Amino acid sequence: MPRNIKLTLSYDGTDFYGWQVQPGLLTIQGTLAAAIARVTGETVLPQGSGRTDAGVHALAQAASFPLENPLPGDNLARALNHFLPPAIRVLDAEDAAPTFHARHSAKSKTYRYRIHRGEICSPFIARQVYHHPYPLDEAAIMASAATVIGEHDFTSFAAVDPERDSDPAASSNVRKIFASDWRREGDELVYSVSGNGFLHHMVRNLVGAFLLIGKGGLSSCYMAEVLQARDRSQAAATAPASGLVLVSVEY
Amino acid sequence: MPRNIKLTLSYDGTDFYGWQVQPGLLTIQGTLAAAIARVTGETVLPQGSGRTDAGVHALAQAASFPLENPLPGDNLARALNHFLPPAIRVLDAEDAAPTFHARHSAKSKTYRYRIHRGEICSPFIARQVYHHPYPLDEAAIMASAATVIGEHDFTSFAAVDPERDSDPAASSNVRKIFASDWRREGDELVYSVSGNGFLHHMVRNLVGAFLLIGKGGLSSCYMAEVLQARDRSQAAATAPASGLVLVSVEY
Repeated sequence: MPRNIKLTLSYDGTDFYGWQVQPGLLTIQGTLAAAIARVTGETVLPQGSGRTDAGVHALAQAASFPLENPLPGDNLARALNHFLPPAIRVLDAEDAAPTFHARHSAKSKTYRYRIHRGEICSPFIARQVYHHPYPLDEAAIMASAATVIGEHDFTSFAAVDPERDSDPAASSNVRKIFASDWRREGDELVYSVSGNGFLHHMVRNLVGAFLLIGKGGLSSCYMAEVLQARDRSQAAATAPASGLVLVSVEY
Repeated sequence: MPRNIKLTLSYDGTDFYGWQVQPGLLTIQGTLAAAIARVTGETVLPQGSGRTDAGVHALAQAASFPLENPLPGDNLARALNHFLPPAIRVLDAEDAAPTFHARHSAKSKTYRYRIHRGEICSPFIARQVYHHPYPLDEAAIMASAATVIGEHDFTSFAAVDPERDSDPAASSNVRKIFASDWRREGDELVYSVSGNGFLHHMVRNLVGAFLLIGKGGLSSCYMAEVLQARDRSQAAATAPASGLVLVSVEY
């Protein structure tokens, strides 16, 4: 019976083609699998709590995989960091229960989306934000944030070719959002959202709709109307990947 | 008589082959010249306050160049930022006196060098620091910092093939250091140094010597001895470029 390893990972997604392994492309999952093979000689495909898109970051992504190698968690983390590029760091490696699965066991996830509102965006944060120095009715955005809290069918905010980030067998687009708020943090307008699962592109599509609200001229019921439409074509453009970060996964 | 433009620039040097234009390579100077040409149609070679090496950053580098185009400074800055990559930002563009030259007119410069001392270095700062989680006698480093203050011949800390960052015609390796100190800032050990000019690789070579002191076993006069030797072969290895940032240039 192999061990069941749980990793906690941070990464700057800018230079990666997202989480999921793709032939010939630099991905987080593929780079991590290569480091595991270097350290242990074992070929595994670590399962993430969900796929992050190309350019999306993580403060604490979770991943799980079976391992025969007996290396203690701390040493495993150190050894993996030795072979990983500085853009990916293993923050923690531990033995999990045999039934633990980074995706199936996830109870909730929290994402943040950072919009830089200053006229000039420092090169040292440009990779981690969406730079949008143009006028926005921030009060209207903040006022509409809570509309998405609760259990809803998020079809209007799912990618047209939907990939589910929770159970791929589930056919439902219903997800439960626990918290949704926008606040100002210095030069940044920051969205925080927690939920029991997110459809493909869902956070970026929500942010796209909030941005449309910020540009003005919409009914104060716009967000509720789009939700109710259950039709992706009713919603706004997908916000850029650079501003999005997976903050944490709760089990 | 063309205008004499002074730019203040910030850049993340990670993905550039340094300041100075080089055929076929991505450089700050070359990228800036291309943006100036896109905006104004004029071919100029902006002169920096000094060359930064490949991978070295700037919070506020200065550059000057002649320009016929009458665009006001603010508009020029905005237009240049439109054509520059997010890794380079023009913070300010203004008309300078006809005699102003970003290199020749510089009175002093300030650099910082950031050493990340935590066991794990976040991917979001990895490009801006040198990650050194190994034991260092930080008190010994701090105690030796002031040794380099004053006017000294810095031959021991100049690259063997010296390129001067102040007056290239000057044959002297004498420079005056106004301030030199190490301090702890959270997980980082940070060096700040100001002087009237710096030889090629000088700050990184000073940091290399301080690191050797931190590794222990040297006389408390080591820094003074190396200074006095006026011989590059007596000194330590050059510290990595990633930790270095040009903070400001005073005129």
